[in-house]
Amino acid sequence: MTLLGPLFAPDEVRDVFSDRACLQAMLDVEAALARAEATAGVIPRAAAPAIQAKCRAELFDLEAIAKAAPNGGNLAIPLVRQLTALVKTDDAEASRFVHWGATSQDIIDTGLVLQLRAFLPLLEKDLARLSEALAALARKHKDTPEVGRTWLQQALPVTFGLKAAGWLDGIERQRGRLAELKARLFVVQFGGAAGTLAALGPKGLDVASALAGELKLALPDMPWHGQRDRFAEAGATFGLIIGSLAKMARDVSLLMQTEIGEVQEPAGEGRGGSSTMPHKRNPVASASVLAAATRAPGLVATLLQAMAPEHERGLGGWQAEWVVLPELAVLAGGAARTMGETMEGLELNAGRMAENLECTQGLVLAEAVQMALGAKIGRDVAHDLIEKASRRALAEGQHLRDVLTADPAVTQHLAKAEIGRLLDARNYLGQAAALVERVLAAKK
Amino acid sequence: MTLLGPLFAPDEVRDVFSDRACLQAMLDVEAALARAEATAGVIPRAAAPAIQAKCRAELFDLEAIAKAAPNGGNLAIPLVRQLTALVKTDDAEASRFVHWGATSQDIIDTGLVLQLRAFLPLLEKDLARLSEALAALARKHKDTPEVGRTWLQQALPVTFGLKAAGWLDGIERQRGRLAELKARLFVVQFGGAAGTLAALGPKGLDVASALAGELKLALPDMPWHGQRDRFAEAGATFGLIIGSLAKMARDVSLLMQTEIGEVQEPAGEGRGGSSTMPHKRNPVASASVLAAATRAPGLVATLLQAMAPEHERGLGGWQAEWVVLPELAVLAGGAARTMGETMEGLELNAGRMAENLECTQGLVLAEAVQMALGAKIGRDVAHDLIEKASRRALAEGQHLRDVLTADPAVTQHLAKAEIGRLLDARNYLGQAAALVERVLAAKK
Amino acid sequence: MTLLGPLFAPDEVRDVFSDRACLQAMLDVEAALARAEATAGVIPRAAAPAIQAKCRAELFDLEAIAKAAPNGGNLAIPLVRQLTALVKTDDAEASRFVHWGATSQDIIDTGLVLQLRAFLPLLEKDLARLSEALAALARKHKDTPEVGRTWLQQALPVTFGLKAAGWLDGIERQRGRLAELKARLFVVQFGGAAGTLAALGPKGLDVASALAGELKLALPDMPWHGQRDRFAEAGATFGLIIGSLAKMARDVSLLMQTEIGEVQEPAGEGRGGSSTMPHKRNPVASASVLAAATRAPGLVATLLQAMAPEHERGLGGWQAEWVVLPELAVLAGGAARTMGETMEGLELNAGRMAENLECTQGLVLAEAVQMALGAKIGRDVAHDLIEKASRRALAEGQHLRDVLTADPAVTQHLAKAEIGRLLDARNYLGQAAALVERVLAAKK
Amino acid sequence: MTLLGPLFAPDEVRDVFSDRACLQAMLDVEAALARAEATAGVIPRAAAPAIQAKCRAELFDLEAIAKAAPNGGNLAIPLVRQLTALVKTDDAEASRFVHWGATSQDIIDTGLVLQLRAFLPLLEKDLARLSEALAALARKHKDTPEVGRTWLQQALPVTFGLKAAGWLDGIERQRGRLAELKARLFVVQFGGAAGTLAALGPKGLDVASALAGELKLALPDMPWHGQRDRFAEAGATFGLIIGSLAKMARDVSLLMQTEIGEVQEPAGEGRGGSSTMPHKRNPVASASVLAAATRAPGLVATLLQAMAPEHERGLGGWQAEWVVLPELAVLAGGAARTMGETMEGLELNAGRMAENLECTQGLVLAEAVQMALGAKIGRDVAHDLIEKASRRALAEGQHLRDVLTADPAVTQHLAKAEIGRLLDARNYLGQAAALVERVLAAKK
Repeated sequence: MTLLGPLFAPDEVRDVFSDRACLQAMLDVEAALARAEATAGVIPRAAAPAIQAKCRAELFDLEAIAKAAPNGGNLAIPLVRQLTALVKTDDAEASRFVHWGATSQDIIDTGLVLQLRAFLPLLEKDLARLSEALAALARKHKDTPEVGRTWLQQALPVTFGLKAAGWLDGIERQRGRLAELKARLFVVQFGGAAGTLAALGPKGLDVASALAGELKLALPDMPWHGQRDRFAEAGATFGLIIGSLAKMARDVSLLMQTEIGEVQEPAGEGRGGSSTMPHKRNPVASASVLAAATRAPGLVATLLQAMAPEHERGLGGWQAEWVVLPELAVLAGGAARTMGETMEGLELNAGRMAENLECTQGLVLAEAVQMALGAKIGRDVAHDLIEKASRRALAEGQHLRDVLTADPAVTQHLAKAEIGRLLDARNYLGQAAALVERVLAAKK
Repeated sequence: MTLLGPLFAPDEVRDVFSDRACLQAMLDVEAALARAEATAGVIPRAAAPAIQAKCRAELFDLEAIAKAAPNGGNLAIPLVRQLTALVKTDDAEASRFVHWGATSQDIIDTGLVLQLRAFLPLLEKDLARLSEALAALARKHKDTPEVGRTWLQQALPVTFGLKAAGWLDGIERQRGRLAELKARLFVVQFGGAAGTLAALGPKGLDVASALAGELKLALPDMPWHGQRDRFAEAGATFGLIIGSLAKMARDVSLLMQTEIGEVQEPAGEGRGGSSTMPHKRNPVASASVLAAATRAPGLVATLLQAMAPEHERGLGGWQAEWVVLPELAVLAGGAARTMGETMEGLELNAGRMAENLECTQGLVLAEAVQMALGAKIGRDVAHDLIEKASRRALAEGQHLRDVLTADPAVTQHLAKAEIGRLLDARNYLGQAAALVERVLAAKK
Repeated sequence: MTLLGPLFAPDEVRDVFSDRACLQAMLDVEAALARAEATAGVIPRAAAPAIQAKCRAELFDLEAIAKAAPNGGNLAIPLVRQLTALVKTDDAEASRFVHWGATSQDIIDTGLVLQLRAFLPLLEKDLARLSEALAALARKHKDTPEVGRTWLQQALPVTFGLKAAGWLDGIERQRGRLAELKARLFVVQFGGAAGTLAALGPKGLDVASALAGELKLALPDMPWHGQRDRFAEAGATFGLIIGSLAKMARDVSLLMQTEIGEVQEPAGEGRGGSSTMPHKRNPVASASVLAAATRAPGLVATLLQAMAPEHERGLGGWQAEWVVLPELAVLAGGAARTMGETMEGLELNAGRMAENLECTQGLVLAEAVQMALGAKIGRDVAHDLIEKASRRALAEGQHLRDVLTADPAVTQHLAKAEIGRLLDARNYLGQAAALVERVLAAKK
Repeated sequence: MTLLGPLFAPDEVRDVFSDRACLQAMLDVEAALARAEATAGVIPRAAAPAIQAKCRAELFDLEAIAKAAPNGGNLAIPLVRQLTALVKTDDAEASRFVHWGATSQDIIDTGLVLQLRAFLPLLEKDLARLSEALAALARKHKDTPEVGRTWLQQALPVTFGLKAAGWLDGIERQRGRLAELKARLFVVQFGGAAGTLAALGPKGLDVASALAGELKLALPDMPWHGQRDRFAEAGATFGLIIGSLAKMARDVSLLMQTEIGEVQEPAGEGRGGSSTMPHKRNPVASASVLAAATRAPGLVATLLQAMAPEHERGLGGWQAEWVVLPELAVLAGGAARTMGETMEGLELNAGRMAENLECTQGLVLAEAVQMALGAKIGRDVAHDLIEKASRRALAEGQHLRDVLTADPAVTQHLAKAEIGRLLDARNYLGQAAALVERVLAAKK
């Protein structure tokens, strides 16, 4: 199932969650554990380097581990068996202290924490890059009028900058959530078979603390074998991020419609194009992000479902996390990179934006005229006048401007030029520019 | 569908999310909007009190609103229509300024924020109460031995206090998440038809700011009609909380099994009992929480799915939130209350705990003897001795103590009394007490 | 939570799943059980009418039942208590035989089966009506050209009839699934406390069979307290149906876009319109269906999650079904009705369809010219010629026809009239009409 | 992510859904298409063998295809490009007819149908094997008493045979669903770019029909690019199957609890055991199935969510299916195999079953005595007597038999031996045996 190609993910993200990296992360925990225990005087000093020397994934037979895993119910058991055998070839004494006092879940959970810690900077970098791109778009197009659409219907003018600011605003909150997550997530898991560290005697907490130090993770108040909220929160956060990215993908794909054509995803060699249909440019980046977003909610639900394991360590839930949390991470990483690239290279067609603003022949600006007229002749009368004019424009296929300028009831209060000014979207953008400024000012 | 009885929720929580409360929340927003606009000079000063006077849910015909809602696609449209009519009966002029410059979503979203703000203290109070109960259990039973179980199999001794500390540890993190959520969630939604506040002319932001002030909500950097992460995060947080509560419910229901009998949910008039089967005490509280947890993940997934609406305001996603987010809140509120009451009144049976620790006839403590013996004769020899003894005990149905005390290879190093001491769970609890202390010390 | 108004459901569907109807369905089971047991000689003959006389929901205090339900963990316990008390007022002897030999789940599950049996004809009728409407659209517009869109980009011509036939094709399969579901779903649940009918002595199966007969349900091979696949399948089927309805809603809402305008949902008094924006017609029906479709997948997931209850009867899963399966049914019923009405009254704008086919200025038909040219000068040469012409048309903003007719390399093989004919969508519809015929012929 | 080892799946199932098999399935479609088109006279006769000769996955560079896929948004585009290049090396003319008239989705969807068709017999075989094992258990233990448990509490006696019959009953329905699925699922997808087969001129349907014939698939009434119910139904069916398998896994894992010990998963070299804790036998098979069941609902939800793609072919939904449907299939296949092996080798401990029936000291049979006594002294009096006796037995820790035989009010109606007989679970099994027979008789 490595052919997930169409659901794009950067190589470095895939690398963090590759089979080999998963193995290496667990081995990093085993090595750190040996060092911590040697320091604490729990195992012989010499055992640590002997063990550490073998904690290299390339020495292991992945296939054999995968094949053996179902028997014990997890990857750590065959991993420890291979590691012990490897250490033994050089140092039989040291091999007796492999995995000392630990339980499989200590290694697997902490290994996954290490992978997530490697992943988060990649995600943060991509989100930061995306934020920059969005800020640039918001700034540049602060005053570029575009029609705002609600319920997929043209409503009132907005600016493209405001649209970009909305995307940015959402992503900035996501970055905040990601930052808050870390303190809870980046902790060691270490409790031994039942979470008491009993096998380590009085030195249990010393070892736990040293292990955390070795791995540069925090020491949690207690082991969390049965409390899965940390991983569920990480997954939910990735799901939220994917949701905000999907919002952009939704908008881009809709704006790229042949009949709308206000933006284009960046072109690229063979990117979304068609030799037989040169007018067609498929929103392939958006599709990839929307596909991620189709999948993410179900994956987050799975992690939430896995939060109630039985007793000290359960069955069925934990095993589901191993696959699902990395999947969510890869989807988030891929979607963030994809949207970053898309927004950096997004092609705008201001001409089409202007045309589309005109496609109701002035009706999207009827409110603007009504407001101006109302100030002079009273809101109610103005409303009736404009409503009648609008309906007539629609029924007769005329531009609202022409209907209004032909109506003395209107022209006696508003000059033709004034009507033209009012029907110009640039003059009915409300606080759009100010809102863009607010969002830009708040950007981290 | 009000007969959700079996899925218990406190009356005050249901009240926050009742049809009437939903309506009132929206009316509170309309009233505040009128005040804000009067203050800002956007509508006549006198209009505000006239509008406010009618913003009382009891004046409205709920049935009629519900019936009319599908036509416009939301509740705000018929609500505004009724409100306008009500105001008109007393003050025709004022009625023209009802809902001035707002869009339906401004009212619905802000109304839901108000309901959530009313709900959070209830949830926080129940979680605080639960934390207290858990802390009391952890403290009181810091040294009460109980068998630890992994994969639903007896593993090693733990303490009931450690189990309670694990539950507490999880809930404390949830309280932290809830606290972090507020800054993002408690904001006003106000943007008008397309999010630009254009209908309010240059005073759009002034009104928005005043409206936020009236409602004691923060003013966000921009409207968030199309950015649904706030609500999705709230739902995900409720889902996470329900997950931690379900973990307790899972454990309690398993510990209550007839064959285990280590705890009982608090008894109560007709609570979970059976007149024909007096030995039976159904874990009805746990069932209710587990039912909530069966539902929550799917509901969270729905909110995540709703995060990519079309353009400025979409269709299909927003409408799903109205039902799903309140449902999640009610489930969280009900589960928190239920678990609080359960933990406050939880009945422990220390006798059964002790018996269950013995049901493997010493095998759950074989490791303890092995450690002690290993210190004297070397780990390997000790391991072989103890493994052999354990298998023999199991095969012959003997207590491990009897096998060990009959084996000179053991008794020459460990006195009978020492063997007895080692096979006492109280002497092999590792860092359980220290871990409980750590969790208690960290409790907010 | 009755204010689900915006998520439209027909009154008769809501009625089937109202609190009162839920109660009445359970009471129908209690009454049928009394009759069956009287017939089988298990309870006194006179007890049956005495019990039956009180099995009328209007005699019951719903509020009290809802309030008491959490104590016992389900609605049946307080219901039976009230029923017993009611019977007792008239016939103390008979009151002793209320609910004889049954367990709560027998009553609740069978009651829900009865509700579903009442619901299915409503759903089937609405789907049949929808099928008729779709068939009429497919037939009428078998030859109405419309541009086909893939990836939200214009691709090649199709017909509106083909689009309607696709919707019809999907719904017909759904009707087939619904039909297959019945044999598995319409069965009685009756097993007593542990599924053995032990309390009824040797007459257990006789009573079960008589009960099934009374309710006109099938007798399953054994009770299914712990096997929840019947309800999960029902929910999944509703979810599938909603999915097919959502496909139509998606298409309608996209086709209604201001910039596309090829169809309109049927107008109606105050339906989706806006007095200030007369050009705007919101797809409120589609929104309601899409909202249902946003919710359904999570609800189906919940039912699947509830399929692994503990032992003979579990906890947490069953309780979730009570809410979730009716919710899914109501969403399916509402969506089916909504789409039926929408398709019956769908307004087509063939003019806009024709215009949109032209908006790429012939490019969507480039393939047609290429095929014709290829037959004369070879495929490769034709491909190069047409590709070049297409790119030129696009770059220069010319119509492909004009580019081609100006190119002697083309015109020496294709007359101007022939080029015009080839660039007419009506002449490049492939098997569209034949496919429509196939689907219409297969319609049930 | 191939290290899914702990989530066991048979090699032959993994092989069906391997990257290479996915590619080969698409190539099989391309080859069949070439043959069909040659037969129909659409492409030169000689092109078919030339194309077919290169339709072998081992000739392709998987890595390159995976890398290129995101650019075009699917695997078919780079696959066709490689295939064309390969054919060209031998036969430039034939290479022009690769993929003639098809769209990527034709190839991808039909390829996935082929994979599913290869998978279903494997699944069916494993389910048949499981059914056999369950039938054998049901038959053999038709009269083996075991305590029935509801709400995780001991309730009344059942038989292990009845429990097995319940599992069997569920699986038999699942086999029925799988059979019904085939007619809808095993169809070709072939419509060309917009579903009209326009590029094939008048021969479109002939080619479609011939293609279906070549692949031994049915020809659907029309292409189903936008109607995804077939795949969603397949996924839902896999989800339902996994749910029934999880029910067994739930029961087995609970029955294996140290304190219950009524069954054991089959032992095996290193299977679920622990060298340091010889009493511990982890339910690793059950854990694997429960992990699958934790994941399946979210995956099914994803497929349902993907059912409303945009227009003729959408974006985001279809791409999610490629990963999710195979995942569900592999989970179903793995869970079915695992449960088949588990049930074939399930070890029963009838002694523990008998002991557990006694652990309430007769209370689980109080109802049996009450029924017998009621027949003699009236139900009410009997009920009071037995309830009092039961409470006393419970309070004093006595066996109910001892309390009853010491009570003259009882013994004057029931002899001591009769009381003993009544308190023997074997005499209060109701219709358990008859129900088992019914299920066995209905087995396919």
